[in-house]
Amino acid sequence: MAQGGVYDYTVSQYVVDFSGEATWTSLLNYILEAAGDDADRNGFGVTDLNAGNCSWVLRRMAAEITRRLHRSEEFSVRTWVSEVNRTGTVRNMTVTGSDGCVVAQAVTQWAVIDVERRVALDLRGRVDCSYAIVDEPSPIAMPARVGIVEPTRIREYEVVYSDTDFNNHVNAIRYMVWMVDTLPMEYVAGRQLRRIDVNFLHEAVHGQRLSIGFEAGEKSLFAIDDENGTTLCRAALEWK
Amino acid sequence: MAQGGVYDYTVSQYVVDFSGEATWTSLLNYILEAAGDDADRNGFGVTDLNAGNCSWVLRRMAAEITRRLHRSEEFSVRTWVSEVNRTGTVRNMTVTGSDGCVVAQAVTQWAVIDVERRVALDLRGRVDCSYAIVDEPSPIAMPARVGIVEPTRIREYEVVYSDTDFNNHVNAIRYMVWMVDTLPMEYVAGRQLRRIDVNFLHEAVHGQRLSIGFEAGEKSLFAIDDENGTTLCRAALEWK
Repeated sequence: MAQGGVYDYTVSQYVVDFSGEATWTSLLNYILEAAGDDADRNGFGVTDLNAGNCSWVLRRMAAEITRRLHRSEEFSVRTWVSEVNRTGTVRNMTVTGSDGCVVAQAVTQWAVIDVERRVALDLRGRVDCSYAIVDEPSPIAMPARVGIVEPTRIREYEVVYSDTDFNNHVNAIRYMVWMVDTLPMEYVAGRQLRRIDVNFLHEAVHGQRLSIGFEAGEKSLFAIDDENGTTLCRAALEWK
Repeated sequence: MAQGGVYDYTVSQYVVDFSGEATWTSLLNYILEAAGDDADRNGFGVTDLNAGNCSWVLRRMAAEITRRLHRSEEFSVRTWVSEVNRTGTVRNMTVTGSDGCVVAQAVTQWAVIDVERRVALDLRGRVDCSYAIVDEPSPIAMPARVGIVEPTRIREYEVVYSDTDFNNHVNAIRYMVWMVDTLPMEYVAGRQLRRIDVNFLHEAVHGQRLSIGFEAGEKSLFAIDDENGTTLCRAALEWK
C-alpha cells in the first residue's frame, strides 16, 4: 500500500515579508514543489510526462493555513494521491512546522494535457499513477467553484519572462502573487489568510496583458482576465 | 584561522525558465542566501544586526557564470569574508555544481545602515566580523562602477508587496529580475550571461513607480530611476 511522500524544506530568507514570516504564496509554492518532487519520485512527474509530449496542469487548488512559517524554519510537506480517474488526479498536502504542529493543509486537482495542443487528455493508457493511491481522505474540503467576480479594483499587468518556467508555462503561484499584489498594502498587513480556493481556467502566456480584478466582501474575490475578456483564473480568499 | 562556510541547496523546479535551466537571477538569489546564512551562523547576520537597529545593505555585486544549473540539481555555495574595513565588508562566493565543477563566482560589497534613518554607519564598535576574515583573494575582479545609462527602451514598473522582504526592504535580486524582464524575450532566449556588475545606489520602496531603462551595446546597460529621476540601481551585463 502506498504511503505518500514526505519532503523537507527550510524557509528561504527571501520569501518572508515585512512581518518576518513567510508569505502565504511562498508556502503554497513549497506545497506544489512537494507535489512535483513526489510525482517525479513516483515516475509520473513532469519530466516523465514531457517524454510523451504531455504535462500536468493544475485545475483547482484549496489550502487552509493555521499559521505562517518563520524565517529559516525547517518544515516538512507530506503529500499523497487520494484519487485517480479518467480526467485527472487529486493530490493532498499537509505541512508540519518545526514545532511538530500542522501549519497548513491543501488539496489539488490535476489534469494531463497535450503539450502542443494544450488540450486535456484521458489519463487511461497514458499515465499510470493508480499504484500511488493512498486510502486516506483529503484533509480539507475540495476546492470550491468560484463564480463571477465584479471587481471594484483592477490592476493591469503584462506577463514577463520571470513569470514563466519550463514549457513557457506560467507557474500557478504567480497568479496568486498577482492577486495579492493588487491588494492595498494595509489590506495585506492587517489580515491572515484562512482559506483560499483557486480555479485555473485558461493558461496565461508570456507578453499577454492581463486585468487583475478584486472584489471586496465577506471573502476577497479575484478574477484574472486576458485582453479579450476571457477569464484565466478566479479565486476566493477567506481571512481570519 | 577562519575558513568560510559551505551551504548546500537543490534547484527548485520553479526557478527554471523555458530552457529547463535555472535563471541566472535565481542563481544570484542562492548566492545571497548563502551569504545571509553564513552571516547568521557567524553571529553578524541581519537578525543580530536588527537587534541593534542596524542592517546590512548590498552596495555592489559582481558575478561570473560558467554554466547554468539544471532543474533539481544539487549544488553548494562556499562563501567567505575577505575584507572588513570601517565602511563595510567584502564577501565572496563560489558555486559548485553536481559535477564538482565551479559554475559561478561572485564578489559582493556590503555596508551597515541604521534601519530607521537608512544612513550608512561606521562598522567599528557596532559589528565585529574581523574574526571571520579568510586570507584568500576574491575569485573574480571587484564590482565595477557603472556609469550613466542612455536607455533605448524603458519599462514602467510599480513596486509591489511581493518585491519586499523583512524591513520592507526590496530584495536585491528583484532589481535584476526587473531588468531581465525589460528585455525582449528573444534577447533573453538567445544569450547566456557571462558577467554582471551591479551598483545599488538608493533603495526602492513599496508603491514607488520606477522606470527601468535598457541601453543595448557591447554590454547591456540598465538604470532604474524613481519618479524624481533619482537613479536607484545601475548594472552592466556582459553576454557570452
